[in-house]
Amino acid sequence: MMDRMEIRIAGKGGQGVILASIILAEAAVNSGKYATQTQSYGPEARGGACKAETIISEHKISYPEITVPNFVMALTQNAADKYIRNLPEDTIVVLDSGVMPPEGASDYRLYRLPILETAEKKVGKALTANIVAVGAINRILDICSFEQLYETVRNRVPKGTEELNLKALQAGYEMDSEDKR
Amino acid sequence: MMDRMEIRIAGKGGQGVILASIILAEAAVNSGKYATQTQSYGPEARGGACKAETIISEHKISYPEITVPNFVMALTQNAADKYIRNLPEDTIVVLDSGVMPPEGASDYRLYRLPILETAEKKVGKALTANIVAVGAINRILDICSFEQLYETVRNRVPKGTEELNLKALQAGYEMDSEDKR
Repeated sequence: MMDRMEIRIAGKGGQGVILASIILAEAAVNSGKYATQTQSYGPEARGGACKAETIISEHKISYPEITVPNFVMALTQNAADKYIRNLPEDTIVVLDSGVMPPEGASDYRLYRLPILETAEKKVGKALTANIVAVGAINRILDICSFEQLYETVRNRVPKGTEELNLKALQAGYEMDSEDKR
Repeated sequence: MMDRMEIRIAGKGGQGVILASIILAEAAVNSGKYATQTQSYGPEARGGACKAETIISEHKISYPEITVPNFVMALTQNAADKYIRNLPEDTIVVLDSGVMPPEGASDYRLYRLPILETAEKKVGKALTANIVAVGAINRILDICSFEQLYETVRNRVPKGTEELNLKALQAGYEMDSEDKR
């Protein structure tokens, strides 16, 4: 992986983007790296777009807020319209297939992945979309091994849902982009 | 509550301090405030002390990292030894009853509360210590109403555990400090 990665995951409340962001941070630490994980909320966040951010580094992190993300994922149109803006040209942008690329998105390294559909139809539970997303992110960014990632997921999800979440993680790894450039 | 509060919760992995910190941030937002929530991890965090931080403000927050906390809670001795240091004299410090005050702690506004014992014996489940802690923190800091806090807890805990967590929250409100100064 890169020496330092700044990862933003955006969606709407209830999609589990905070947990996805925490899992990436913990998986990174479990493979010997440093990480910080942050979310900011305002009254406008109620029912609207929300985001969670993870910084992962080979070195100690002194400033924990994302300045310029290398990677942004948006699971909803609102989130894409709000958080995919003013990014450097080489930013990796992953959109759920149901999201239309916002203006200017063609400048980025764009992937469109059927995250929500995979969770609902292939895994069989819409609530696993965040774990599908975690799988897809690690496949692209190579933060840690699949085994390390699964170990972290297993420790973070409710007891009794381990198998379902393993399925979600695998489905996330196996998704094909419809629109990779 | 105060105009701006910087709240640090420290413990060990598995005690749910991140969830406690997230719940405080979300409860604050649900009552119309701004909040950020952060954790930093390093390889040294594995199995050791960990902390999660929440900033709550009446106004938009431009710098999301805690600079000087107003409030620090430590659930374990390691966490207290590591994170209760160099604080301003008027910092509110809450220690679990099983934790010895670290050197210099007498300078602070110290509370010792039986958080872990209350979760284990009164609520009947050690894993609810983080929710007991959330109740205790809100009673001291008055971030939002009990009803708003419970609503947030209910949305964040696994389905089927709502009643247990309500009991934990109430027990957190009702705890008496052994050592309030």
